[in-house]
Amino acid sequence: MLVTKQSFTFGNPPDEMSLDNGRTLGPVTLSYETYGTLNVDRSNAILIGTGLTADSHAAGYYSEKDQYPGWWDGLIGEGKAFDTNKYFVICSNVIGGCMGSTGPASIYPITGKPFGMLFPVITIRDMVRAQHYLIDHLGIKKLLCVTGGSMGGLQALEWARTYPDRVRSIIPVSCSAHLTAQGIAFNEIGRQSIMAEPNWNNGNYYDKKSPTYGLALARMIGHITYLSEEKLQHRFGRKMVDSEIIKADGADQFEIESYLHYKGNTFVERFDANSYLYLTRAIDLFDLAIEGDLSKGVLNINTDCLFITMSSDWLFPPSETIQIVDILRQQQKNVDYVEIKTYHGHDGFLIETASMTEPIRKFLSGRK
Amino acid sequence: MLVTKQSFTFGNPPDEMSLDNGRTLGPVTLSYETYGTLNVDRSNAILIGTGLTADSHAAGYYSEKDQYPGWWDGLIGEGKAFDTNKYFVICSNVIGGCMGSTGPASIYPITGKPFGMLFPVITIRDMVRAQHYLIDHLGIKKLLCVTGGSMGGLQALEWARTYPDRVRSIIPVSCSAHLTAQGIAFNEIGRQSIMAEPNWNNGNYYDKKSPTYGLALARMIGHITYLSEEKLQHRFGRKMVDSEIIKADGADQFEIESYLHYKGNTFVERFDANSYLYLTRAIDLFDLAIEGDLSKGVLNINTDCLFITMSSDWLFPPSETIQIVDILRQQQKNVDYVEIKTYHGHDGFLIETASMTEPIRKFLSGRK
Repeated sequence: MLVTKQSFTFGNPPDEMSLDNGRTLGPVTLSYETYGTLNVDRSNAILIGTGLTADSHAAGYYSEKDQYPGWWDGLIGEGKAFDTNKYFVICSNVIGGCMGSTGPASIYPITGKPFGMLFPVITIRDMVRAQHYLIDHLGIKKLLCVTGGSMGGLQALEWARTYPDRVRSIIPVSCSAHLTAQGIAFNEIGRQSIMAEPNWNNGNYYDKKSPTYGLALARMIGHITYLSEEKLQHRFGRKMVDSEIIKADGADQFEIESYLHYKGNTFVERFDANSYLYLTRAIDLFDLAIEGDLSKGVLNINTDCLFITMSSDWLFPPSETIQIVDILRQQQKNVDYVEIKTYHGHDGFLIETASMTEPIRKFLSGRK
Repeated sequence: MLVTKQSFTFGNPPDEMSLDNGRTLGPVTLSYETYGTLNVDRSNAILIGTGLTADSHAAGYYSEKDQYPGWWDGLIGEGKAFDTNKYFVICSNVIGGCMGSTGPASIYPITGKPFGMLFPVITIRDMVRAQHYLIDHLGIKKLLCVTGGSMGGLQALEWARTYPDRVRSIIPVSCSAHLTAQGIAFNEIGRQSIMAEPNWNNGNYYDKKSPTYGLALARMIGHITYLSEEKLQHRFGRKMVDSEIIKADGADQFEIESYLHYKGNTFVERFDANSYLYLTRAIDLFDLAIEGDLSKGVLNINTDCLFITMSSDWLFPPSETIQIVDILRQQQKNVDYVEIKTYHGHDGFLIETASMTEPIRKFLSGRK
């Protein structure tokens, strides 16, 4: 499947998009891709939200030469869970990011320079509000489904509570009602790693050297939370790398260290440090509960839901997700729940596409 | 109980102490404290090893005005688990550290300047080897017990396998045969945080500004691993601080963030960044197994053992400790095991002194 990246711009002054923090943003560009065909009554559209660092390139290849497909290619395509023979699948990445949608690296019309830290604080609701302009633009009154993993799953939840009349069903994967204190702590340490680097320069580095070291470190921290302890132990354990940099006078390097360094160093080539600050903050701030009351927070949700979790996820543990499931069921909502047994941890949502296929297919079947 | 810090220097050239990495170190100073009285046949001595960042000040007060006692005061004193009416308790901190014992901040005789990164890589065995000189100096042929939590527990294990004839029993607390891949990963991120800071300057900062930001960040990372998710959730959850620094244009700060910043910032006043590098590396390198074989690794151990773990410890999980217990029991060794039910995580070894008292008292009773 060959696909093309598209973009949509809206919110030109004076019709800027309003934000949760009271400010406005405009013009706003959203980068997105689509797979499959929108049917005549525009009722077969499925929207996919992106995770923290993912592009809108969820499926297919850009060219015959492309080595890797999009990040959820295992689920999207002909005959797959999100069957492109039946559904029109849209994947949009988020404002605040750095993959084509408006973010801190975009030009701030007032200064004519990149926003940097002048970019407004954004929330998951702001991301969804922007997507809602895109859905209007595509002429879709009601989405058949909104789905996504991790931060993408939070977007699905936000769609269901903010636009209950615009969505028929949601499939939030590997996410829960909010991040735990531990999750916020890890995000904060990632942000501090970036902000500690002199090259970060208060976010003004776009014409200078980027804070690559701090961003790599943030990614390394994040990466530990994406993998289960079991997987790390199985894959790396205490194995040593022989030919790596010798540290602190003669101590060999462990493979887990080498792996994290690699992950950190490749990440900085494709991601913007300021976006990392804004998007992790948006995740921290997301809370499905209202004043600590989850029952109150989900009252608006009347779409059918399929929650999918990964058994070894400790960033968004299944036990947290089950709290939403239980409360929605108490409210007589139609909720399915599947826990995938896996040792891939939070990252399972990207890897366990085979195990997710049947539950998703069953949930969507016959749905119009 | 009023106590005094003491120190002992040995290994003066040409009689330097040899190290695991083939180099030598000397002169070597060890900082230590003692509580109680050594009996006539010198058979009532208990040695306590320190954790990563702890001083030798394990019990009592330095003066009447002192606000806080030593870090294991709940266990050491008259009528306590390590009863100073019966036992002569010694707490020594470690080489590589920065609390009075020889470490990277000490003067390197060859250059006349602080060692910095010229300090040799040290291992837990090197720490124990240094303590063994102290025990000789105190005229003690055989220690009644060696104990300690976390890195202190690793020292107890190392004593039992390296000097089986010099120790009658060990009580390793909150530790296991080695750190997991995840534990190594967290240590490495802490080290990278320090080494990323320009003020670290390859370890040469003793006459300049210290890498306080990187060290604070390393401590913040460590601190997450010392506390259980449950405790973080219970104590902080998603509570916000009202009057704190406003970040990224209007987003409030979470209490967990403020707490970690506080912990990081107070830590840098009392700890040396280079010591953090060396001591975390020593912990990474410790392995009770020999070529992955734990049965082989513990063959030497013939002292009675009491292992104590904290149920919610995820840095040294009880499941890891139990592996040593099982193997020692297969080898017909005399091993007791107690898991303290607590939500304090790894830090439990500093907090759960009341719960640890009876098991320790029972284990030591009648022992000579």
